[in-house]
Amino acid sequence: IAENKDAELQAMMKEFHYADIAEIADELDVEGATYLIKLLDSEKTSDILAEMHEDIREAVLKNLTAKEIAGELSELDTDDAADIINELPKELVQEVISEIADREHAKDIVDLLRYEEDSAGGLMAKELVKVNENWTVTTCVKEMRAQAENVTRVHSIYVVDDEGKLKGRLSLKDLLTASTKTHIKDVYISKVDAVNVNEKGEEVAKIMSKYDLEAIPVVDEIGRLVGRITIDDIVDVIREEADKDYQMAAGISQDVEVSDSIWILTRARLPWLTLGLLGGLGAAAIMGTFEDMISKHAVLFFFTPLIAAMAGNVGVQSSAIVVQGLANDDLKGSVRNHLLKEMLLALLNGFILSILLLLFTWVWKGAFATALAISLSLIVVIVVAGFIGTFIPLFLHKRNIDPAIATGPFITTSNDIFGILIYFWIAKMILGI
Amino acid sequence: IAENKDAELQAMMKEFHYADIAEIADELDVEGATYLIKLLDSEKTSDILAEMHEDIREAVLKNLTAKEIAGELSELDTDDAADIINELPKELVQEVISEIADREHAKDIVDLLRYEEDSAGGLMAKELVKVNENWTVTTCVKEMRAQAENVTRVHSIYVVDDEGKLKGRLSLKDLLTASTKTHIKDVYISKVDAVNVNEKGEEVAKIMSKYDLEAIPVVDEIGRLVGRITIDDIVDVIREEADKDYQMAAGISQDVEVSDSIWILTRARLPWLTLGLLGGLGAAAIMGTFEDMISKHAVLFFFTPLIAAMAGNVGVQSSAIVVQGLANDDLKGSVRNHLLKEMLLALLNGFILSILLLLFTWVWKGAFATALAISLSLIVVIVVAGFIGTFIPLFLHKRNIDPAIATGPFITTSNDIFGILIYFWIAKMILGI
Repeated sequence: IAENKDAELQAMMKEFHYADIAEIADELDVEGATYLIKLLDSEKTSDILAEMHEDIREAVLKNLTAKEIAGELSELDTDDAADIINELPKELVQEVISEIADREHAKDIVDLLRYEEDSAGGLMAKELVKVNENWTVTTCVKEMRAQAENVTRVHSIYVVDDEGKLKGRLSLKDLLTASTKTHIKDVYISKVDAVNVNEKGEEVAKIMSKYDLEAIPVVDEIGRLVGRITIDDIVDVIREEADKDYQMAAGISQDVEVSDSIWILTRARLPWLTLGLLGGLGAAAIMGTFEDMISKHAVLFFFTPLIAAMAGNVGVQSSAIVVQGLANDDLKGSVRNHLLKEMLLALLNGFILSILLLLFTWVWKGAFATALAISLSLIVVIVVAGFIGTFIPLFLHKRNIDPAIATGPFITTSNDIFGILIYFWIAKMILGI
Repeated sequence: IAENKDAELQAMMKEFHYADIAEIADELDVEGATYLIKLLDSEKTSDILAEMHEDIREAVLKNLTAKEIAGELSELDTDDAADIINELPKELVQEVISEIADREHAKDIVDLLRYEEDSAGGLMAKELVKVNENWTVTTCVKEMRAQAENVTRVHSIYVVDDEGKLKGRLSLKDLLTASTKTHIKDVYISKVDAVNVNEKGEEVAKIMSKYDLEAIPVVDEIGRLVGRITIDDIVDVIREEADKDYQMAAGISQDVEVSDSIWILTRARLPWLTLGLLGGLGAAAIMGTFEDMISKHAVLFFFTPLIAAMAGNVGVQSSAIVVQGLANDDLKGSVRNHLLKEMLLALLNGFILSILLLLFTWVWKGAFATALAISLSLIVVIVVAGFIGTFIPLFLHKRNIDPAIATGPFITTSNDIFGILIYFWIAKMILGI
């Protein structure tokens, strides 16, 4: 951390894991981080860059020349390199790519740039070990040794035909016990899970965790092997997916972090808060139409926050469990059955809560008719809230819209309005005003 | 699915992956699932059982004898076997364990039963490949071959000393290029990440994903190698952790699923709803004390749901981002700075929203003083809500309580009450009543 003691710092950093140095670099200012990156050799700095926080990496890369960036990318696996290139300003991309010395590596990276970031193509790396089914064991071992040098972890040996189509995989054990003249096609295992290059990252995560896979080959539309996804990238997908849903449920759009600036955070939060404000104004307008009840039944107005809160809570509970069920593929059976079950559940909860409310209000205010009106409305409000909370995410899912947007403030706000509307209607009917 | 066509069913199931059969079994009733398990051979059924839904597995196991269960467990890795034994009724455990033919395997399983389910010890398996630093390469290769038979995926070869203490790991490449007489201690890599057997699952997940590890060795207090955790188990930990936080934020306690019964679901939801009810009663009581304002300023009462909703939304946004920051170790810097930033953010949001509210209410009701009172209260309410939402999870975290309990209904309810109290106070002051 002290300046100018280059040699000492170099020696110290040598002992550290790149992920730890990346954490240190994230804490430094941009100059400090750039200084650190320039000081260490590119074998280590490339990994550090890949692990660093996006914003800080972007700032550091601005201080490097195209040639320096190309040097870093040469050391990285194609998937990490492609991720970094995606963050570079457009005018720099071509220059950086032309500076990469290994043309094969550059070509692989360019190939990866075509794919959507959260598709199988965007997650996969080009590095893998593949052998032709027509090779003999001897050729195979020789070729594998050369290929394996570029691959950090081998996991599986994939078998392809002359056209590059994925045929199966090869077990190391079978390879070692087979005689040297045997052809690969006689020993490989033809059963292998693979995903299409356009498959969504989320789906790949599901498949890999269902079958406990540590790597999965990626094929194009006609079945040619084009890459491989490893479990460590999938762990990141799962985390990001969970974070996104969590934030959505809390009414924070975009992917923000605590360390972001106040402006970014405001932009992420204000839309949902504005929605809440509009909902509140709607509720106020509804109450305004019942203003004539205020002189005789002021107590009704005291309970509006309670009604709104219960409608919101029940709605969030219902929608959260549907959204989670959909995300985990746990939701089986027909939509009608789910709605029915959810409404039965709401009825049961509503009944218990209404009894509590009835007793309390009766004792407190002494007016049984009012207490009854409030309590009966609560049951109806809870059942409707449960229905809306279940129906909207299911409906969005059917229409291929991410159901997670229907959680949090959205459900809370719409249930607030419906809740208050129903509440005053029923109260008006029961009290015969 | 048809009955009695055993041979056909057997042939069909042979083609299926065990994870798929487990899914089918989950869909069948208990008799159907038991029938399926008894039909297939134990090599496959053990894996099916391990993948099946907990509740259905428990029911199926009730239909099997201790000997049959022992047969299934013999085929499983120690970690999966220990998980299943943990679900068995206590009186059956001893009988099942005594029926396991392989005594070493039984001993390993019993060892694992000692550990907390979500600690490193509870996650690890006993299956691993370890070699003694004093062996020669020849002995090592021979021993490894024998050990590898019990290990599904090798990942790493761990090196231990005579006391069983973890010294480092061995790269397959170094092993193969070394001369046969070399001692392991001259070729192994002494740098290896390991976790203590009592480390929390969550922490292990963080370490493994930070360093992109696919397996990590587990050591006891004095550094002896006792097991190994693989990334597929960690993927489950990450998913469960995310699901738990998500449910907590939605006001659903316990780990429930859509498929659970209405009674279980009610038990999980009712506590938070009751909390919401109490909050609503509190709000009603507060409004009751301001009842004398109702004749002159009825409009104040129309805006209580808006104030409560905004207080709740801001609180949830603030707490969610703190809880997520804590979970991802993203939260750096002092508590004071966070509170300051969050309050600045709330001030900015509050200012923008209040302007909107002021304009709307002024135009709608024509009463500038009332509109100003409502809008000014909104700013204060939002700032206080942001403060509470940030402070409570940070405070709980400092006291080693899971901050996730402070999200969702808890924050919403407390902010509702504070919000309404502040709102009426300020309105009263400004309107000079």
